Amino acid sequence: MTDSSWAVADCELFGVDNLPYGSFVRGDGVPHVGVRVGQKVLDLTSAYRALDPSRAGLFAGGTLDLLLAAGRPTWTAVRSQIVSWLTDETHRPAIEPLLVGLDEVVPRLPFTVADYVDFYASECHATNVGRIFRPDGEPLTPNWKHLPIGYHGRSGTVVVSGTEVRRPVGQYRGDDGSIEFGPSGRLDLEAEVAFVLGTRSTRPVPVAGAARHIFGLCLLNDWSARDIQAWEYVPLGPFLGKSFATSVSAWITPMDALAAARVPPPPRDPAPLPYLDDGAQQWGFDIDIEVLLNGQVISRPPFATMYWTAAQMLAHLTVNGASILPGDVFASGTVSGSARGQRGSLLELTWNGTDPIALAHSTSRTFLEDGDEVVLTATAPSVGGGRISLGEVRGRIVSAES
Amino acid sequence: MTDSSWAVADCELFGVDNLPYGSFVRGDGVPHVGVRVGQKVLDLTSAYRALDPSRAGLFAGGTLDLLLAAGRPTWTAVRSQIVSWLTDETHRPAIEPLLVGLDEVVPRLPFTVADYVDFYASECHATNVGRIFRPDGEPLTPNWKHLPIGYHGRSGTVVVSGTEVRRPVGQYRGDDGSIEFGPSGRLDLEAEVAFVLGTRSTRPVPVAGAARHIFGLCLLNDWSARDIQAWEYVPLGPFLGKSFATSVSAWITPMDALAAARVPPPPRDPAPLPYLDDGAQQWGFDIDIEVLLNGQVISRPPFATMYWTAAQMLAHLTVNGASILPGDVFASGTVSGSARGQRGSLLELTWNGTDPIALAHSTSRTFLEDGDEVVLTATAPSVGGGRISLGEVRGRIVSAES
Repeated sequence: MTDSSWAVADCELFGVDNLPYGSFVRGDGVPHVGVRVGQKVLDLTSAYRALDPSRAGLFAGGTLDLLLAAGRPTWTAVRSQIVSWLTDETHRPAIEPLLVGLDEVVPRLPFTVADYVDFYASECHATNVGRIFRPDGEPLTPNWKHLPIGYHGRSGTVVVSGTEVRRPVGQYRGDDGSIEFGPSGRLDLEAEVAFVLGTRSTRPVPVAGAARHIFGLCLLNDWSARDIQAWEYVPLGPFLGKSFATSVSAWITPMDALAAARVPPPPRDPAPLPYLDDGAQQWGFDIDIEVLLNGQVISRPPFATMYWTAAQMLAHLTVNGASILPGDVFASGTVSGSARGQRGSLLELTWNGTDPIALAHSTSRTFLEDGDEVVLTATAPSVGGGRISLGEVRGRIVSAES
Repeated sequence: MTDSSWAVADCELFGVDNLPYGSFVRGDGVPHVGVRVGQKVLDLTSAYRALDPSRAGLFAGGTLDLLLAAGRPTWTAVRSQIVSWLTDETHRPAIEPLLVGLDEVVPRLPFTVADYVDFYASECHATNVGRIFRPDGEPLTPNWKHLPIGYHGRSGTVVVSGTEVRRPVGQYRGDDGSIEFGPSGRLDLEAEVAFVLGTRSTRPVPVAGAARHIFGLCLLNDWSARDIQAWEYVPLGPFLGKSFATSVSAWITPMDALAAARVPPPPRDPAPLPYLDDGAQQWGFDIDIEVLLNGQVISRPPFATMYWTAAQMLAHLTVNGASILPGDVFASGTVSGSARGQRGSLLELTWNGTDPIALAHSTSRTFLEDGDEVVLTATAPSVGGGRISLGEVRGRIVSAES
């Protein structure tokens, strides 16, 4: 499709097969909804006001909130309309003036985050963590292959890519077992994929119903203070070790853009319970992630290896009767493949700090230092036969409050 | 003060020393903010529109959202104004027509819940749970007396008192270790007190700064499916065992109404770290809770026994740099005293179902059955020398989805 677009001839990764949505401001500080096209952003708030007032209300608020709530038929119709605007020469005179350079906009958190849930769905990641923290036991807990383990995170501290991340302060145990208080000394990244929910539901969502509710996905960095987390997490799970910041990409890739990236999940043994059976549903995604630390690729986690799929996560999340709302987000948990170069956290890459990774200029890292910048980026097969980009989530560590 | 009010002469528990805030609808379905006065509700949305348009915007939306965000100086001014309206005879002709019978209104969730955190701050409760689940180990985990343990819950399933609670469905382990799936057989209540945050902060809130941020408190029932929870919670904490529903009272008692209920917390050993030191701050509350099951009092948990106070919980929640927003809620965790008749959950009252409690008509319970109704209610000393009521949180169990 890309070659037929007047707008994005030379930008395959963000061509009309992709079209991720976001929210941005320019000089006047007024938020607008936009869709990324190549190195430009089409201002949808202005475009709908000018070209289709019947839908202008969806975009008037400058966030994706109302679009998320509108549901799949609207998502499909809006996407078709935007593709037509960007490919049909007759729309060019009206649309071209509404394309803004990416470097002229400041992205905002694209929607109001309702509940944020983080899963733990990579078998390689969970196995690595088990081996590191329970070297004498079974690496996976007995429940791991029966249900996608998850927990609620703090939605109020989800921040958009580019936001600085302040090193958290807290309690942890020193090497001698004493209780310490101060800036975390084991600040980590976690490379994840997050799914954004639209259509509300007050009933369990079966695996086969996931497409009705999942609007799109983005990259997510679940920053983690390993020392704070290790001391606090028994028996009620992670809390302050995670709640200081969670970074998400500025641009949300709609599910329609990922139709060619669908792959079968890995085989499961034992077979999941019926409510988690996704046999006929290809809910795996062939997404190749790259983790960059200070500009250098340190890992390439393959999302296709994830044991539990988004459809299973959503089925599990709602099986107890929990409602879902527009703006709910659930993330996959750290994505790690089986090779060392595919691990999605420094905890795993450095084996809990015992085996530092080498970086350029004869430097190395166990955990993150002040000033370090982490970027997650990813690509996936596009329906046009090439690849699309999932953009990036970027964050730089700044020193703790003094 | 009560005796000088024309509006509430015979209703000490909800006199002008109390004045809890809520949101309600009448026949037209339009939400209004109200304040409870005796067996009536003063319609604040209408009262401000008529009597003080400069503040009418705070109440126009029909929820407490804007009042929460407005901050303590506004909270104090609004409360004084309402007391004046209800006590000064000169206001009577304007105010009296705006008093609606409590039985003529339907309460709504009083504000938009942002993040919901649940703590675990009762030493008796945590000790009981430890003894039940780890009979051979130390009842308290090593971190328990060093920090208020907490976790994030699901804010989207916080519901107002009176909402029916559907028995959740899920995975759990049978007595023989097999994996079962179906309606929870161990549905429990948890009697808690929840604190509602107003003023936003992006910096750590010290213990001494808590009053600036805490708007008020309410009762909370943290419904818990013990079988689902037991199977899922290692290693990331409670998830579906809690996320199906959390009930809160319809009326939020402002902190100003609880000035006479402040008591010193119990002694702490070891001394908390400096950021948790609340020595000079009387942040304990002398709140007497009653738990009723099908109309019969089954427990009287004393909130004054809580080990960690609300000010410490807030200091801990934010010490890592996590921001707080208007509408954030944090709850105390189950309130249990040292006597059997003071335990705040059926898990403890029946010692994990091994020792049923006797009810009227020769019935008994281990956990909740379909049709059971649970009511939490509470009172506290009032500034006028009597007592105020914290209202109630009520919920009836309905059978699982078939």
